[in-house]
Amino acid sequence: MTQSQKTVNAVRDALDTSILTYNELNAARIDELTEEPSALDFMQYCAHNRPFVIRQGARSWKAVQRWNYDYLVDALQDTSVNVAITPHGNADAILEKEDGSLSFVKPYEREEAFEDFVRYVIQQEQSVESSPTEPVKYGQTQNDNLRDEYQELFNDVPPTVPFARIALRKAPEAVNFWLGNRFSVTSLHKDNYENIYAQIVGQKHFVLLPPIDAPCVAERNLPAETYVLNQVTSSASPGSLSSLQKHELVATPDSPPSTTPVATWDPDHPSVRATPYSMRAQQIRVTLNEGDMLYLPAMWYHKVSQSCGSEGFSCAVNYWYDMDFGGGFWATNAFVRDVAIALEDA
Amino acid sequence: MTQSQKTVNAVRDALDTSILTYNELNAARIDELTEEPSALDFMQYCAHNRPFVIRQGARSWKAVQRWNYDYLVDALQDTSVNVAITPHGNADAILEKEDGSLSFVKPYEREEAFEDFVRYVIQQEQSVESSPTEPVKYGQTQNDNLRDEYQELFNDVPPTVPFARIALRKAPEAVNFWLGNRFSVTSLHKDNYENIYAQIVGQKHFVLLPPIDAPCVAERNLPAETYVLNQVTSSASPGSLSSLQKHELVATPDSPPSTTPVATWDPDHPSVRATPYSMRAQQIRVTLNEGDMLYLPAMWYHKVSQSCGSEGFSCAVNYWYDMDFGGGFWATNAFVRDVAIALEDA
Repeated sequence: MTQSQKTVNAVRDALDTSILTYNELNAARIDELTEEPSALDFMQYCAHNRPFVIRQGARSWKAVQRWNYDYLVDALQDTSVNVAITPHGNADAILEKEDGSLSFVKPYEREEAFEDFVRYVIQQEQSVESSPTEPVKYGQTQNDNLRDEYQELFNDVPPTVPFARIALRKAPEAVNFWLGNRFSVTSLHKDNYENIYAQIVGQKHFVLLPPIDAPCVAERNLPAETYVLNQVTSSASPGSLSSLQKHELVATPDSPPSTTPVATWDPDHPSVRATPYSMRAQQIRVTLNEGDMLYLPAMWYHKVSQSCGSEGFSCAVNYWYDMDFGGGFWATNAFVRDVAIALEDA
Repeated sequence: MTQSQKTVNAVRDALDTSILTYNELNAARIDELTEEPSALDFMQYCAHNRPFVIRQGARSWKAVQRWNYDYLVDALQDTSVNVAITPHGNADAILEKEDGSLSFVKPYEREEAFEDFVRYVIQQEQSVESSPTEPVKYGQTQNDNLRDEYQELFNDVPPTVPFARIALRKAPEAVNFWLGNRFSVTSLHKDNYENIYAQIVGQKHFVLLPPIDAPCVAERNLPAETYVLNQVTSSASPGSLSSLQKHELVATPDSPPSTTPVATWDPDHPSVRATPYSMRAQQIRVTLNEGDMLYLPAMWYHKVSQSCGSEGFSCAVNYWYDMDFGGGFWATNAFVRDVAIALEDA
């Protein structure tokens, strides 16, 4: 064995050890609080970059007490909203082509009247199909939409989360509204925000992995694509609100071509695209019920699916606070990821 | 070039990038506060693992106001204390032998009457020599000695540092008393404690490096040695308090043999034992004057020297709080160090 091969093996072992050490030092479960933490308590969770859930932490919010189909439609009756449309509920997700090649595909987006959108979501949810026969719609713009297109609802939630604002010394960068049904799944990804998530209607199901599990998730640069209307087969003109069929949505490479780094491993199909480290990942699974809050620390990988109660839709609000890039957290996480990628090529 | 060599180069680049990224995201200076931080402020520094100094933060302590030769000798007149004795002031330091080999050598320790010890320290400090003609003595046991052998002085300092106790939710693991002169230098090392340091008499000079600079410091496992009395040449029997000559102290391999991981790079001689990364290290230098406090975060490398005022000695107190091994901090820092060591062998 050459010295270089020995060094590569030593680095592989170090990567393996880092995950084992983390797992030894941290429980593979989420802390469950029954009331909001103090700002200092929250800062300790931030310092450890560890999640927690506050059961019924948002129960007193007007949103949790009032939001249902009638209330939302009444508040947003004259509002058109951005709707993300995909054939299979795969917004911002990996698409595996028939030839086995992978891409990262973003949804087709268009404006729809809120009432039409939410009725579509409910109708699809209440169908008996196990997979959607029509395209899946999801309100998920993640662009501070609760203070913009959904602003009529903003007074129903706190403008900021006090323990987070005090601890992080900043206002939220974005407050987002999410509405969808059981067919929408957000694939495993991470965000460079401290995230406070509140479930309002229905349930959200999270799979969580800490940043040190970067070697487990098989991150690769994938070509970026977007679903666009197939102009030949579509009966709909791009501006119209006619119904769409799945086959009218065609994943099309972005122009100019670009790539985006994506976790290609799926914790729900752990043998597919596994790396030598994937089996080390200690998945933390948590379900948020109506009124529950989640602190999802910056850079944690998360896969999110949802289920709907009697209302027929799932609805949530989240607050994104800019993460702090000071200290060694950002630089060491980037290093772990860079080494993992270097070894994948070895 | 083989694939393994390419991978090794990619890992080398990633290590280099990690240090550059850290340096871009963090100023190469220490925050200077003028009053104690709140517990929440302190927690934010802990979360970032970034040091700060509080100028005159300890000015109201009885120790800062009262401690001098007369006061200390009066308080400790009947007390014998542990004294670390080395030929060159190199307690817990690297020793380079004539053949170029390195070892890590610990001091010869014995009990002396406090008054004898401190008079020796002062007399040596006030000599005009640029290097010591007699062995160097240092009170530096780091074993919670201020609550033990120096307990008569413990009431002169706060029993804990309130902002740290509240933020870290624990009492100090150790409170240490340090007394020495300009000849004692503590070589570059790190501790797995959150450290609150207060300068009482004289000055301390710190060189600080963050944990991500592990690749810069050329950490190696060195044979452990201890200075012992040379029984052949020594006129002193081990139990006696007669004066010692430098040549009577002989660095002797520990039995059974052991090795200890040591940073072998010296920021004051940056070209000696340098690694390819050493020149990236952004050294932070800070001097503590009487009454100043320093937060030295867990796992930061520090080299410490001292100078003495008119009292002829330097004296300090520090509080060690157990670091928290939760979250990714410990595991990712260990990974950076392990990769650096793997590459040194490449």
